Amino acid sequence: MTRADMPWRATILTLYPDMFPGPLGVSLSGDALGRGEWSLEARNIREHGLGRHRSVDDTPSGGGAGMVLRCDVLAAAIDAAAPPEDPRPRLLMSPRGRPLQQERVRELASGPGVLVVCGRFEGVDERVIAGRDLEEVSIGDYVLSGGEIAAITLLDACVRLLPGVMGKAESGVEESFEGGLLEYPHYTRPREWEGRAIPDILSGGNHGAIAKWRRDEARRITAERRPDLLKRAPS
Amino acid sequence: MTRADMPWRATILTLYPDMFPGPLGVSLSGDALGRGEWSLEARNIREHGLGRHRSVDDTPSGGGAGMVLRCDVLAAAIDAAAPPEDPRPRLLMSPRGRPLQQERVRELASGPGVLVVCGRFEGVDERVIAGRDLEEVSIGDYVLSGGEIAAITLLDACVRLLPGVMGKAESGVEESFEGGLLEYPHYTRPREWEGRAIPDILSGGNHGAIAKWRRDEARRITAERRPDLLKRAPS
Repeated sequence: MTRADMPWRATILTLYPDMFPGPLGVSLSGDALGRGEWSLEARNIREHGLGRHRSVDDTPSGGGAGMVLRCDVLAAAIDAAAPPEDPRPRLLMSPRGRPLQQERVRELASGPGVLVVCGRFEGVDERVIAGRDLEEVSIGDYVLSGGEIAAITLLDACVRLLPGVMGKAESGVEESFEGGLLEYPHYTRPREWEGRAIPDILSGGNHGAIAKWRRDEARRITAERRPDLLKRAPS
Repeated sequence: MTRADMPWRATILTLYPDMFPGPLGVSLSGDALGRGEWSLEARNIREHGLGRHRSVDDTPSGGGAGMVLRCDVLAAAIDAAAPPEDPRPRLLMSPRGRPLQQERVRELASGPGVLVVCGRFEGVDERVIAGRDLEEVSIGDYVLSGGEIAAITLLDACVRLLPGVMGKAESGVEESFEGGLLEYPHYTRPREWEGRAIPDILSGGNHGAIAKWRRDEARRITAERRPDLLKRAPS
């Protein structure tokens, strides 16, 4: 079997394997999981815990609240899940990470899959990040109860881009962040609703004019809401 | 019963109510849900669908791929879930929205709860956003298969801040984005691992020096990774 025949493979290291597949087991990604277009394995870090209580964490060096995931325990879990020759990127979901963007999602989706480490407690021992070459990824500037929901978010973004996952109806769609812009406004029937009408141009049948209106609206909305994106977009 | 006695209340409008509570039913937020410290109701938009097939969407005005959620159907679902006097903010998860930040999470968590609309298909008819005063919220610059996982992310961020949800061990913790900075590195036992040692200063017992080291590290890491945050942080 060549690489191209292998389904996209996600391995999650977590203290809460029951959170998976969760919402990824429903709808688009759930159907694709059922068809074998990707695979998902959630492994419990606690299997590599120490002693009778399978302890995985300890108090922070230098004091302070919370508990820190031990580097030796996490490294053992990573080594068991992905030997050094495993070509998949190793991600650590963390608010300190590089903000996830659609471009990185596309790269990840076009690769062999991902190994995702979900942090809990105060954080993970810094040394395992360098020692196991973990790429810290943030899904946004807010704090979650752990990395699991961030991992689910990342997987959903990747899986919908895998070949065969989106149907014809969805796959031709122009999307937010394509061309660096937010999406133009959408309308459908009824033509008038609570005194609000669909813009005339959309009913005119002039496809060139409609395409121009949509480009202009996408640019206007992006300029209004996210001038930071406009700076990066091709003009 | 006064407002202060009411648990924080989340109502989700979705085409996939089975995705809820999903990961929110486990761990911190799941325990809090079980104790009644917040409530979660997922309502199916399709209950307000039209005709024999309970249709909720139609083709986009002006042509193009995908399907658009009808404004009349979504408005009916919103009106049934939250009468005009409902004080909760009405959020629409959308990549076109204002990027979610920890400050907005704190505001939402300190309020009465949220009504969250999850988009699917190409998008929702623009008119319902104005007609029902929806606040568009984005959890990041990437595209998901729908708003459900974004809603779960937002709820997890809010719920962990509700009174009583986090235990003592977690609640005193200094966090990413507190003071506008990313977190300093964490360490715990063992003292040495694969030739990597815990920084000496953390074992010295000089609490003032440790606090200064942590502040300096937080600032250094933020400057390296997210200079955009540093611009907003108090110096």
